[in-house]
Amino acid sequence: MKEYNASYKAYLFDLDGTIYRGSDAIPEAVDVVNRLYGKGIPYVFVTNNSTTPPRSVAEKLVKMGVPCREDQVLTTSMAAASYIKSEHTLPSAPTAYVIGEAGLKEAVESAGIVEKEDNPDYVVMGMDRELTYSKAATAAAAVQNGAVFISTNADKAMPSETGFIPGNGALTSIVALTTGVEPAFMGKPEPMMIDQARKLLGVPKDKLLLVGDNYETDITAGIRAGVSTLHVGTGVTPIHALSSKPALPTHAVATLSDWSL
Amino acid sequence: MKEYNASYKAYLFDLDGTIYRGSDAIPEAVDVVNRLYGKGIPYVFVTNNSTTPPRSVAEKLVKMGVPCREDQVLTTSMAAASYIKSEHTLPSAPTAYVIGEAGLKEAVESAGIVEKEDNPDYVVMGMDRELTYSKAATAAAAVQNGAVFISTNADKAMPSETGFIPGNGALTSIVALTTGVEPAFMGKPEPMMIDQARKLLGVPKDKLLLVGDNYETDITAGIRAGVSTLHVGTGVTPIHALSSKPALPTHAVATLSDWSL
Repeated sequence: MKEYNASYKAYLFDLDGTIYRGSDAIPEAVDVVNRLYGKGIPYVFVTNNSTTPPRSVAEKLVKMGVPCREDQVLTTSMAAASYIKSEHTLPSAPTAYVIGEAGLKEAVESAGIVEKEDNPDYVVMGMDRELTYSKAATAAAAVQNGAVFISTNADKAMPSETGFIPGNGALTSIVALTTGVEPAFMGKPEPMMIDQARKLLGVPKDKLLLVGDNYETDITAGIRAGVSTLHVGTGVTPIHALSSKPALPTHAVATLSDWSL
Repeated sequence: MKEYNASYKAYLFDLDGTIYRGSDAIPEAVDVVNRLYGKGIPYVFVTNNSTTPPRSVAEKLVKMGVPCREDQVLTTSMAAASYIKSEHTLPSAPTAYVIGEAGLKEAVESAGIVEKEDNPDYVVMGMDRELTYSKAATAAAAVQNGAVFISTNADKAMPSETGFIPGNGALTSIVALTTGVEPAFMGKPEPMMIDQARKLLGVPKDKLLLVGDNYETDITAGIRAGVSTLHVGTGVTPIHALSSKPALPTHAVATLSDWSL
């Protein structure tokens, strides 16, 4: 049975579990994005990944046959940089102590935020496979000195070939437990990134559809942001698990081959 | 007003806040230990510190004028090694992936536990100022493979000249959040170290007095272990805060000059 709704004027897509699984494209998803592209319906990819710059995300998608420009990718690192720019009201450039990889470092630099270890305005933490005790201690000192504490995303663990490896939510806990200060998280299930993407697309909430496979992050972020949601059963949350959830997605399909445009 | 109780046949002392503050001895405490020494009343120091070997702890105490032999120091690292030896029932030597500093590495080696990264029987985490993402990921992989997860102590933060720095409880949270497995903690407020020290001293519970400054760790550990407790107001928990606690220490004094032997 095909679900159909022609009233959506723009789409947001999660990536892992929705468009691809690891390095394998999900053909039904590739097809849907190509049909949107053909019809001129705008779309943006929203990802909790903080390590990969949008240029690299777009390259990966294009290789899989998904039409994507760099400006159609919104990462939690970009959301963090945007948040700092919007919150910072002083005339001087905002300063931040940054723990993270290329995706976060580039997003911060592009936004004109100055990296600083000693007494910065902000501490921004993202996934960092080069995290050390020393970096965590420097971040904790800055937070104790009054820096605003921001973390790209709360995902505690990430799947890998050898099981789960520590995610940014687990890394962030070191600084949160040391200081007693909880960070502002940017990524899904927080609605901030969805709001930012909607403004980028310039559409009203009821004309925007968020597509994702993870109820706890994607669908919850969409519900909190007040946009319509399409749950797809190709990733983390199986369709049958939805009935026990506190709020249902607007639509649910087993795969995107069940979604008509 | 002096408190007095001659019925205790052995003493356990916490260190920081009880015997010294950082590098400064607390004179009243030094005096009490010397009087115990003079009377031939046995005593042991029990510390949540996992990084310093007992030899170095004893040296520090002797320099402060506190009579102390190496075998009168029980650290959470030694407690962890003892725990593994008592739990391990297989004929082969127990294997462990160890994150920690000299105090833990030496305790593990002395106990005949073999360090092993790949598929060990145990993961043991202690304070490690050289912690890296890679070490945490290795520990998480081992726990997911079924290794028993042990942590020396749950202290989330440690005081330093520049404020609080991450403690072992914060470091341990990375692996706990990644795997969903909570470790067995060895240190105070768990009673295990108190039980081990009591067996070392060979005295019944009602003849043993635990002296400490921190209600949440020292006094709670003593209460849980069923021994008598003496709270001293020279460290973390002020005397006036005791009245709001769920269970009172057996005795409480402002300083150890108020404790008669």
